[in-house]
Amino acid sequence: MASVKVFGSPTSAEVARVLTCLFEKEVEFQLIRVDTFKGQKRLPEYLKLQPQGQALTFEDEKMTLVDSREICRHIAEKYQEKGNRDLLGSGTLERASIEQWLQTEAYSFDPPASALVFNLAFAPLMDIEKDEEVIERSKKKLIKVLDIYEQKLAETRYLAGDKFTLADLSHLPNAHRLVTNAGCRSLFTSRKRVNRWWEEISNRASWRNVVGMQQEAPPMI
Amino acid sequence: MASVKVFGSPTSAEVARVLTCLFEKEVEFQLIRVDTFKGQKRLPEYLKLQPQGQALTFEDEKMTLVDSREICRHIAEKYQEKGNRDLLGSGTLERASIEQWLQTEAYSFDPPASALVFNLAFAPLMDIEKDEEVIERSKKKLIKVLDIYEQKLAETRYLAGDKFTLADLSHLPNAHRLVTNAGCRSLFTSRKRVNRWWEEISNRASWRNVVGMQQEAPPMI
Repeated sequence: MASVKVFGSPTSAEVARVLTCLFEKEVEFQLIRVDTFKGQKRLPEYLKLQPQGQALTFEDEKMTLVDSREICRHIAEKYQEKGNRDLLGSGTLERASIEQWLQTEAYSFDPPASALVFNLAFAPLMDIEKDEEVIERSKKKLIKVLDIYEQKLAETRYLAGDKFTLADLSHLPNAHRLVTNAGCRSLFTSRKRVNRWWEEISNRASWRNVVGMQQEAPPMI
Repeated sequence: MASVKVFGSPTSAEVARVLTCLFEKEVEFQLIRVDTFKGQKRLPEYLKLQPQGQALTFEDEKMTLVDSREICRHIAEKYQEKGNRDLLGSGTLERASIEQWLQTEAYSFDPPASALVFNLAFAPLMDIEKDEEVIERSKKKLIKVLDIYEQKLAETRYLAGDKFTLADLSHLPNAHRLVTNAGCRSLFTSRKRVNRWWEEISNRASWRNVVGMQQEAPPMI
């Protein structure tokens, strides 16, 4: 019986991040999805997330976590000997660099990326008007961040060095949504090294697996 | 919060029977699916069902049931005032006739139908050799049952009378698998009234909804 349990939908960016990490680490787990039906309709996912629900819950034996990056750290540390052993590096210096780029992802890349994804992909489906000001502001922020990535990726193959780590992995869900959106794709493709990095990380078997699960899953909203 | 919870995959015939009933009754419910992953592979459903697991578990407040036909009776009785009110008839005589055909489905139709589905659809996927003797014996049994249906359906529109009831509904999951199998389709299409009945029951919105869920769900094995 798998001791690791993930509660959520693979279409959620938070859940997708954790699934990719579990696949990289080759950890056995159970994915538990809950869909609510009323009459013959499936209720939209965003209704279920509020106010009590969590988009993501992770259980490992007696431990429960809800933050996707914290969960990824936990998996990489607890299952150190399994699967990909490079996700958190092998020494203090490497770990420090990975943490730095994980923070950049969480605090500089993710907020504008999420705002863009929400306004460009989800707002139309939810009959919410796009906020053009937010879109413009988010694109500007993302351009600054990706320009820094472009410089960094001229020096190293991946963000934190020459190995694929949690720092790269953490970008996959929202970067995928941006690249598959016609209005945002060029943010990545116009930057030579960012584009090369994206091609490389997005073609990993772990992530292709998650994309397959997202495509077969019912839409998130 | 929905008080009704169904644990299982819509690709299971037992689960599909219950989902169809819930859609007919317009009862709000949660569907909880559990998939086990090892490495980057989803473990086949049949491995999870044994030895402890159940293909189907149903909870309604404090009540837990695992037999699909018993669950359908429970839903039709407890939610009498909701959705389709004809599923168990309105009087003792109607109910008796529905029960009789529900028994025919459970004890005469379902065993050969399940054996055929297993040998023709699942055995090849599981690398198990088809049992030709079982196939022949099951087809002969099914022919006898469907000949009785053909006579009955010359007198009434549905099995237990002129209304669609649990007796008809209960056939949907396995009949669907037979009709979609090239080697079994003619069992239904060659019988004029059985074919007319099948066209009618299989086009109900409740069942089309379940077929849609089966198609978007990961394969059962």
